[in-house]
Amino acid sequence: MNVEFINPFLSSVSNVLATMATLEVKNAKVKVKEGDLPLGDISVVMKMNSKQARGTLVISFTQPAILGLVQRMLSEELGSIDATAIDLAGELTNMVTGGAKRLLEEQGYDFDMASPVTVVGTGHKIYHNSKAQTIVIPYSSDVGDFYIEMSFDTTP
Amino acid sequence: MNVEFINPFLSSVSNVLATMATLEVKNAKVKVKEGDLPLGDISVVMKMNSKQARGTLVISFTQPAILGLVQRMLSEELGSIDATAIDLAGELTNMVTGGAKRLLEEQGYDFDMASPVTVVGTGHKIYHNSKAQTIVIPYSSDVGDFYIEMSFDTTP
Repeated sequence: MNVEFINPFLSSVSNVLATMATLEVKNAKVKVKEGDLPLGDISVVMKMNSKQARGTLVISFTQPAILGLVQRMLSEELGSIDATAIDLAGELTNMVTGGAKRLLEEQGYDFDMASPVTVVGTGHKIYHNSKAQTIVIPYSSDVGDFYIEMSFDTTP
Repeated sequence: MNVEFINPFLSSVSNVLATMATLEVKNAKVKVKEGDLPLGDISVVMKMNSKQARGTLVISFTQPAILGLVQRMLSEELGSIDATAIDLAGELTNMVTGGAKRLLEEQGYDFDMASPVTVVGTGHKIYHNSKAQTIVIPYSSDVGDFYIEMSFDTTP
């Protein structure tokens, strides 16, 4: 996977969460996904296509992280993941990919994004049917952990 | 959702499973998805975009159904969903959407398909972030049940 795809997402995640949730996030080392360990409890899957590359971005939130974000951004206390949390996870992912898309445009990539699909379920696992490696970036924050996964193929 | 999208998928599912797995399938009535009941244990999510419409197709297999298909098509007995079952679910979904794409072309739609993303997990739920209704088609067969979900928005 072309590493120039990674930084726009790293910048965008930090920007979106600092701006929208006044939340500082810290990312661990970018690593190649091995095996199929589950990540969070709610995952938003976004397909991104351009002439030169196509790929998938997933933001996977643990339950504490998404409920903490609902609390910070909407001042609602939720006991579990409900429609409000699902909507917020989708909106945050739209904002992160939107921000990354603008940064990637500066590098000459014009990505078209489909609407995201959201998966909810304890211990669910996501498989990218991609020839490229999948990259995982674990994040920690005051409200909890979340993960970014991405896999981009350059088109031949 | 435009109902003309539904029939090409119904035809393609029957064709693919009859041809590839010598399996006759029976579908229950097409219905609008209400609530968020989980469907199968492994779901393959395929984004399909054209100039006139964009949408998501999901084929969600119960564990007995996908393991039965592995047995029929690959003569392997699996005790649980593994990499072989994940690959086969993805391939079957590629074949079904490929067949439907050809039928939709005859109706003037030229869909571009991303590579599918596969979700594994008991009781996982999938949310389509679409303004259009989501349609569910339950299927039964000698090996077990599976479901097709689709949601297509016509682009303005």
